[in-house]
Amino acid sequence: MDERTHALDPALVRDIVAAALAEDRAAFDVTTQATVPPDQQGQATFLYKADGVVCGLDLAREVFAQCSPDLVLTVRHPDGTWVESGAVAAEVEGPLAAMLSGERVALNLVQRLSGIATMARRYVDEAAKGGPARIVDTRKTTPGLRALERYAVRTGGARNHRNTLEDGVLIKDNHLAAAAARGIGLAEVVRLAREHAAHTLRIEVEVTEAEQAREAIEASADVILLDNMPPEQMRDIVAAAPPHVLFEASGGITLDTLAEVAATGVHLISAGALTHSAPALDISIEVDAAATSAGPSGSTGQQE
Amino acid sequence: MDERTHALDPALVRDIVAAALAEDRAAFDVTTQATVPPDQQGQATFLYKADGVVCGLDLAREVFAQCSPDLVLTVRHPDGTWVESGAVAAEVEGPLAAMLSGERVALNLVQRLSGIATMARRYVDEAAKGGPARIVDTRKTTPGLRALERYAVRTGGARNHRNTLEDGVLIKDNHLAAAAARGIGLAEVVRLAREHAAHTLRIEVEVTEAEQAREAIEASADVILLDNMPPEQMRDIVAAAPPHVLFEASGGITLDTLAEVAATGVHLISAGALTHSAPALDISIEVDAAATSAGPSGSTGQQE
Amino acid sequence: MDERTHALDPALVRDIVAAALAEDRAAFDVTTQATVPPDQQGQATFLYKADGVVCGLDLAREVFAQCSPDLVLTVRHPDGTWVESGAVAAEVEGPLAAMLSGERVALNLVQRLSGIATMARRYVDEAAKGGPARIVDTRKTTPGLRALERYAVRTGGARNHRNTLEDGVLIKDNHLAAAAARGIGLAEVVRLAREHAAHTLRIEVEVTEAEQAREAIEASADVILLDNMPPEQMRDIVAAAPPHVLFEASGGITLDTLAEVAATGVHLISAGALTHSAPALDISIEVDAAATSAGPSGSTGQQE
Amino acid sequence: MDERTHALDPALVRDIVAAALAEDRAAFDVTTQATVPPDQQGQATFLYKADGVVCGLDLAREVFAQCSPDLVLTVRHPDGTWVESGAVAAEVEGPLAAMLSGERVALNLVQRLSGIATMARRYVDEAAKGGPARIVDTRKTTPGLRALERYAVRTGGARNHRNTLEDGVLIKDNHLAAAAARGIGLAEVVRLAREHAAHTLRIEVEVTEAEQAREAIEASADVILLDNMPPEQMRDIVAAAPPHVLFEASGGITLDTLAEVAATGVHLISAGALTHSAPALDISIEVDAAATSAGPSGSTGQQE
Amino acid sequence: MDERTHALDPALVRDIVAAALAEDRAAFDVTTQATVPPDQQGQATFLYKADGVVCGLDLAREVFAQCSPDLVLTVRHPDGTWVESGAVAAEVEGPLAAMLSGERVALNLVQRLSGIATMARRYVDEAAKGGPARIVDTRKTTPGLRALERYAVRTGGARNHRNTLEDGVLIKDNHLAAAAARGIGLAEVVRLAREHAAHTLRIEVEVTEAEQAREAIEASADVILLDNMPPEQMRDIVAAAPPHVLFEASGGITLDTLAEVAATGVHLISAGALTHSAPALDISIEVDAAATSAGPSGSTGQQE
Amino acid sequence: MDERTHALDPALVRDIVAAALAEDRAAFDVTTQATVPPDQQGQATFLYKADGVVCGLDLAREVFAQCSPDLVLTVRHPDGTWVESGAVAAEVEGPLAAMLSGERVALNLVQRLSGIATMARRYVDEAAKGGPARIVDTRKTTPGLRALERYAVRTGGARNHRNTLEDGVLIKDNHLAAAAARGIGLAEVVRLAREHAAHTLRIEVEVTEAEQAREAIEASADVILLDNMPPEQMRDIVAAAPPHVLFEASGGITLDTLAEVAATGVHLISAGALTHSAPALDISIEVDAAATSAGPSGSTGQQE
Repeated sequence: MDERTHALDPALVRDIVAAALAEDRAAFDVTTQATVPPDQQGQATFLYKADGVVCGLDLAREVFAQCSPDLVLTVRHPDGTWVESGAVAAEVEGPLAAMLSGERVALNLVQRLSGIATMARRYVDEAAKGGPARIVDTRKTTPGLRALERYAVRTGGARNHRNTLEDGVLIKDNHLAAAAARGIGLAEVVRLAREHAAHTLRIEVEVTEAEQAREAIEASADVILLDNMPPEQMRDIVAAAPPHVLFEASGGITLDTLAEVAATGVHLISAGALTHSAPALDISIEVDAAATSAGPSGSTGQQE
Repeated sequence: MDERTHALDPALVRDIVAAALAEDRAAFDVTTQATVPPDQQGQATFLYKADGVVCGLDLAREVFAQCSPDLVLTVRHPDGTWVESGAVAAEVEGPLAAMLSGERVALNLVQRLSGIATMARRYVDEAAKGGPARIVDTRKTTPGLRALERYAVRTGGARNHRNTLEDGVLIKDNHLAAAAARGIGLAEVVRLAREHAAHTLRIEVEVTEAEQAREAIEASADVILLDNMPPEQMRDIVAAAPPHVLFEASGGITLDTLAEVAATGVHLISAGALTHSAPALDISIEVDAAATSAGPSGSTGQQE
Repeated sequence: MDERTHALDPALVRDIVAAALAEDRAAFDVTTQATVPPDQQGQATFLYKADGVVCGLDLAREVFAQCSPDLVLTVRHPDGTWVESGAVAAEVEGPLAAMLSGERVALNLVQRLSGIATMARRYVDEAAKGGPARIVDTRKTTPGLRALERYAVRTGGARNHRNTLEDGVLIKDNHLAAAAARGIGLAEVVRLAREHAAHTLRIEVEVTEAEQAREAIEASADVILLDNMPPEQMRDIVAAAPPHVLFEASGGITLDTLAEVAATGVHLISAGALTHSAPALDISIEVDAAATSAGPSGSTGQQE
Repeated sequence: MDERTHALDPALVRDIVAAALAEDRAAFDVTTQATVPPDQQGQATFLYKADGVVCGLDLAREVFAQCSPDLVLTVRHPDGTWVESGAVAAEVEGPLAAMLSGERVALNLVQRLSGIATMARRYVDEAAKGGPARIVDTRKTTPGLRALERYAVRTGGARNHRNTLEDGVLIKDNHLAAAAARGIGLAEVVRLAREHAAHTLRIEVEVTEAEQAREAIEASADVILLDNMPPEQMRDIVAAAPPHVLFEASGGITLDTLAEVAATGVHLISAGALTHSAPALDISIEVDAAATSAGPSGSTGQQE
Repeated sequence: MDERTHALDPALVRDIVAAALAEDRAAFDVTTQATVPPDQQGQATFLYKADGVVCGLDLAREVFAQCSPDLVLTVRHPDGTWVESGAVAAEVEGPLAAMLSGERVALNLVQRLSGIATMARRYVDEAAKGGPARIVDTRKTTPGLRALERYAVRTGGARNHRNTLEDGVLIKDNHLAAAAARGIGLAEVVRLAREHAAHTLRIEVEVTEAEQAREAIEASADVILLDNMPPEQMRDIVAAAPPHVLFEASGGITLDTLAEVAATGVHLISAGALTHSAPALDISIEVDAAATSAGPSGSTGQQE
Repeated sequence: MDERTHALDPALVRDIVAAALAEDRAAFDVTTQATVPPDQQGQATFLYKADGVVCGLDLAREVFAQCSPDLVLTVRHPDGTWVESGAVAAEVEGPLAAMLSGERVALNLVQRLSGIATMARRYVDEAAKGGPARIVDTRKTTPGLRALERYAVRTGGARNHRNTLEDGVLIKDNHLAAAAARGIGLAEVVRLAREHAAHTLRIEVEVTEAEQAREAIEASADVILLDNMPPEQMRDIVAAAPPHVLFEASGGITLDTLAEVAATGVHLISAGALTHSAPALDISIEVDAAATSAGPSGSTGQQE
């Protein structure tokens, strides 16, 4: 992870974690409240049971802090670290009951984000074999978790495409079709976008054929998205274009074909799979209970 | 889907959809607002490009309704239907710009839920080959979307485990370890749970060995969760138990081993994979733009 | 109060108190702001003017903390203590103006909860004269305050019934009537509940006649709610039932008849009156103003 | 109820009802969803089992509307009507399952408000025997429900005191004590209030002795609150005061002493008991299930 | 600023600032995140580039605190101070990136409030030349910012009129017209207001003619608002009235005519312009970047 | 207003209006509720008392709709129309009491937006005399109302700059100074921005000298913001630059100098004054009360 990378917005982390704990009704954990006294202490480790990129420890810290202000998480391998199976990425210490009530929510978040970061790392490494193209994500994210998943993509070493419908102009087939139905061609659609969008945005156009790409370049589009094209065709289009035009490849690209696509000279390769299909990484929380309570000075939080 | 199945809570649907649209800043879709006039009309279809179970159309309807009160979704194959690749599950009609602004959010929801429902159906069908065990989900769901994912599980024909930490007592290894550290054994933990939890809840205990299972049954646990056991061991334990005790199998069960596990006589088989690893189903929205606006009587909503 | 009792969820306490202060527009207290300077200090005591159970001091602490981070509440008799008239349960110290603005909200909460806890204690003590039945509450709580009221019930020594419509199956007369209108009998309703509800829930059925109770037991209901029955009839039904069936008595039971009902052998006695009709306990806040301000080091909060 | 009385704010009603249904998790009513199909229809009546004033039917309507847009409530005796035991104040018709899920929340609200309105009516009638004094409520209301409870007070024929700390100046003993500690007397406190409060507010002062009352009148206080005084003393103070001064009696006034207090000539009598101790009125919902569903045209809501 | 002035409600400040930062998506500041590393430190000053009253520094502090817990604001000239162009009212120190992301929101708030406070000071000073009338604001405030703007008015030395439609009775021309259409005159409207409003409120009536003023005084109105009258007419009305009646002048009063109006003897002069038209004060934030990071001990916040 | 202009997001309108009505406690309007019966009907007109651009009628409609579903607003001159003093832009009809309670909030919004739209129109017209430069707004907007103010800018015929810190890269003096302190020059800052920001964004750089402008162009910045430069200098810089570079003029530009600046050939002129200093347009609501109520069929809303 680039050392310039800024952490997740703390307010966002707080809200997502609070919603997740409420959804699980962690404050009403009948099993734990019936069987574990509030003052029993314990310790837990985040054990990575598969190789991958650590991601989401700030979320885990927030989960436990919301369960009890006395739960303290210590990071051993910070977000962005590649660890091997058997590594302990972090430890938690404090009231055991609160720890048990938050465990599932913490894992649900960390496993998902570590899974995405791990897949992003694999994509980046594979693409690098073909060329210098950036791997970027898409808007095919889990509703409610986009900011987290984009963070995981960055943590894995890939980059983010536009975040929302507001911070990028991307003229897709449906926009072109809508215009065509009104008798308006691609060049005029690019002009409309240039005319109405803020001047701070580039204009990107999705094309499926070489002829369309040429038309878009002529209309001064800044970025051309080549959708579902064979690598050779992409190479030809890129080679024929002026050097200031950017190309993004998208559609049906897998880990197997990534290097080949990167070798075509495209500048960006976008992959919905990063956020859409990354399997959760296998991680567990191993708990170690203490026999005794924290003692008179061990706990000063408001749960007392 | 059982005809007794109640629809998703409309208030929940409204809130999740509103949050998802806000996250995507659909109301600030610069591309569409620059290139598609607000009164152009259009039509779109939800095209299933893979075989699977339809799920989530109420969410799609809500997405489009929030984008414009004039967008109307018509269901052709209701939630729970098994469709084959090429089927059109629903159609949308109305203002094209609003439709394009909501398209991605609608797909993000419907693809995920249809993917879960489809996997649930496959698990149910496979387990049925071995015996009458219920397939149930777990709390390994996407933070913020649990209610939707549980609905998808039911839509696929499987059943739900407890929803939250409040509506079920499940004494896990960590609860037992916490008690052990205080010198308290399994039987006493079951007694504590019985004593403190509301009388409306059954007591379920997770065990990893036959001896533990016997101990739990003796302590009058209502349900025994057999964690990560070989099928033969499960069969022996079930066979030796009194008939009123329920058994749940869990841990490392795949589509391949499902029938074998079901054949052991366990009553429930829980699978985190249903919500955790179900790949999104391949679905697209195909848009067809009209040349003309809706005309004076075509639109009466507040977007005018 | 059982030493295993977990405190109220801090997030819930925070939200309820914030809403109550906003409702009273405590931040716009024109009288206090016109007549008391922000730096005058003071002290106040929670004076119990009637015998009863202390309950709700965490809420009072939160009220004052939200009015000023410099207000500190010290507990003298913790929640669950039985105090006699004249006792001081807690003290508050800090900025006087903030104290006066929060006083009414703090009392509205503490008086209500202490009233409920006190009534719960009386019920528990009275029932104990007849037998070991648990006293439990109902869902007849004040909208918005259920979690607090259930906490007060526990603080008084009684127990909670299910919290919500989700964490317990209770088949009532109306459910049976609904089924009857479709030609479906009690046994089939029990079967439907067993079939559709999560396996973590017991099945409880409300009956008004001995014949119905027998039918429910035969249908394997786990708990039978005996509604509005004379004690003798309850005793007979309980005596005739197998030992694993639980019985709950409900309806028209007063402090006078409690011991008699408990003596029938029922396991639970539920009383809406606990939350529904408990009179607020008579408590006042006695304020003592200081002539001088806190001085340069006395206050470091953000209200400065 | 005065025909000028404005209804409850619909936005407030919507929010309170939504929170109450969420608190009860009415959308997750496992019993009903397991045993009553979504399309079974039914009918229910609000049966008053005690004499009293009807109050809160708009809340009940909203409860049912939120449970299902197809549930329709018809009022037979509007809010403010005095009914006798056995009267049916309203009827509900529509999907039975939704009706059963909302029943408890509707009753919790209507019983509470009808109880308050009934007590207010009794206070008003009793005071009228002594004189024309207004009965007014206090800020001793249930946190979160103040607007509803004030509405119930008006529905019963009594009046509202200030709603919040912002819309009235009431200098209480503690404000006077705070000033005294700084060497400031009652007259100066009244002047400070006049100086700092908006000119739209009257100045009311709480006094416990005749001498204080005289001092307050001299300081041009607009209203004098006579706290816990014997009726004769109140009568003397009122008689000696200039005619434009208003007097409010408060503290320890019961239904028994109300007429006597009203006869002293005070203009207002405030009673915390109205909102603080009014017992819930005994009301039940009687449900009548239909055998059949609504049929193809009976239901067009979004629950379909 | 009067030393009795209480600070802004911290909860309100927190909410307004959070909303403003979210509106600006300060947590997604792409420019700063791309070009300034998270650990670079810096310093900034609030430079007043025009003479005026300092106002809003608590809001600026909160803006920066929400951007980073490590940003510390130090006040040099507190709210209410008159400063001359070139003065530095406050300094901020800490992480530079967070500072840059919050700068615009802080300025948007402080410039607006300082502008209002400055205009209020000018009005107060000018009116004082004519007489002792109070300058008061109106409800013509910016939606969402009323509490802040009223605070700025007080900070400038003026006073607040009623805050909302609840904490003052002001019978305007439209209320009189509404009554007239029902055949009801001014005196009866005053009586209705007295009858229905809480007794803690005075009755104010807006009049446009001397005859109406007389009628209102006769009907015992407490305050008369003289709308858009020439100063001589106001003087005559005030002179002819009993001493306990208050007069408020309003409508078309400018800085030029203020002294003349104050000299008429009216008690209050209200001016919508205070909140409605006060130009933002010219203030800038001057940033000074440090070359190095804070070092290992310099930062302990949750952004780490 | 361009016919392509999309309306304000209805959800945003709903939320802002609800917050504004709550802030004014319109549902607790004591004056109106005491003096106007709920069923009296009336009519009102939005009278423009100054020449200007109509803007904000959808907000007014929403204000009244939230006060009563029976209030109907009819537009006579839609948003974007230039009207002369005396014009009636819209009419409202329905329950008078609800109308009076919402009047102030409606005016507060419409006056502000019409003021901004009018100033935008004046800027656009004046700039057109000098050249084809676009007039654009800035982020110097009222906290909480940015989307509305940007809409007003568009309604007046001007354009929007980036909305938030996310949808545009604008490297300002402070970013350059931060880099300089780390020994990094302008060209490297542009490279960092290009490297880290999404490829959908252009890179804009603020410069104050010709030399800096040259440096930025060389570093391939897409847009150059010329801050506070004399027109001649701007003309020279623009003339010397390659044609694909965009120039924005900013700082100290008034209506008087606008044409001259536009004549320099810059492509954009940004003006904080549009949102920062536009005076509210003089508009009033003229109410006409009806003597009678709406009659049995006149009102079907939920206030009944």
